[in-house]
Amino acid sequence: MATDPLVPTARTTPTRKRDRTTYDRTPINAVLDEALICHLGYVVDGAPVVVPTIHARHGDVLYLHGSTGARVARLADGGVPVTAVVTVLDALVLARSQFHHSMNYRSVAVHGVAHLVTDPAERATALAAVVEHVAPGRAAESRPGDRQELAATAVLRLPLDEAVLKQRSGQVDDDEADFALPHWAGLLPVHTTFGTPEPAPEIDAPLPAHLSDYRRP
Amino acid sequence: MATDPLVPTARTTPTRKRDRTTYDRTPINAVLDEALICHLGYVVDGAPVVVPTIHARHGDVLYLHGSTGARVARLADGGVPVTAVVTVLDALVLARSQFHHSMNYRSVAVHGVAHLVTDPAERATALAAVVEHVAPGRAAESRPGDRQELAATAVLRLPLDEAVLKQRSGQVDDDEADFALPHWAGLLPVHTTFGTPEPAPEIDAPLPAHLSDYRRP
Repeated sequence: MATDPLVPTARTTPTRKRDRTTYDRTPINAVLDEALICHLGYVVDGAPVVVPTIHARHGDVLYLHGSTGARVARLADGGVPVTAVVTVLDALVLARSQFHHSMNYRSVAVHGVAHLVTDPAERATALAAVVEHVAPGRAAESRPGDRQELAATAVLRLPLDEAVLKQRSGQVDDDEADFALPHWAGLLPVHTTFGTPEPAPEIDAPLPAHLSDYRRP
Repeated sequence: MATDPLVPTARTTPTRKRDRTTYDRTPINAVLDEALICHLGYVVDGAPVVVPTIHARHGDVLYLHGSTGARVARLADGGVPVTAVVTVLDALVLARSQFHHSMNYRSVAVHGVAHLVTDPAERATALAAVVEHVAPGRAAESRPGDRQELAATAVLRLPLDEAVLKQRSGQVDDDEADFALPHWAGLLPVHTTFGTPEPAPEIDAPLPAHLSDYRRP
């Protein structure tokens, strides 16, 4: 797996707030691994389309496997230009001024040409990676795809060559002139949490360890 | 505010799983109001761009106000085709088969031509709507934008004319042949929760009611 930083390109270089960006693979990979879903953008007849998609990083490759993947999968037969974005919210930034309201977040955008995975072995790898992404430890505790299922699995492969992490962290950024205002200001942390598992009706087995101790990477 | 269902178009009609879609404004508006962020897609030089953006619904209009809005705001001067997508995750769907892994979610896609809001009064309305979206009750407990701030506020207006809600709910959808497998199957509910507020260093006022009792609509 590559460890060198990614090379910035025109479209991974923001027009402002460049201090909020990084091209280092470790934090980029960490955000890709933590986020549960991805928003995948592509172009149809000159117009933008964005669909929510389940993703999984596998080394230096991002696999994209969506409930709405049928259309993009057809487009991707010969390769389709896409942007895949995952965003993790960390806090609401509640300033005294409406203007300085913001959010603390970490967001990775991956640009490139996505190709449909056609090799059955790589489809099996991608399907297992997606399951493992959703619930670490689960690939070994679920049934892998059979030949028919793998034939029906639409997965795109997007190399992690052109990507950027943008983030905001830290406290509100109010102007000092506003400090005397009577308004409360600060952060409200945002977390993704998980409730009590709801077994399918036929299940009476106990909860496996990978779920009783479920947490995001 | 309009109450009639939206009219489906080619791009709001999915190629499959049409039973998972609705065009009724009430559930569409509810998802737009609940979701904290939006992913905004547009096209630059034929390639897709997706940016995370803070949004706010105001009647039948969606305002889009992003940290990365500078580039799209310049494009939007004469109107720019966009797709804005918000997604709320409800549960991980953990099937016995890897193939039937999925997520329960509610996702709204809004298609249309976004225009830059140029009127200062509408900018003030949009800025307040964004603040109110992030923390209901807060618009009245924060300082509205002044002339200079409103001039620097890049907000897009997207009419809620062409939109669709896609969703999945309910239990796993395993094949009966897999019921005998030893794997646990079911749902793991996903929630967005909020931590202890972290006041800015200069704040010693008590937490206002709109934050001590914070919840999403």
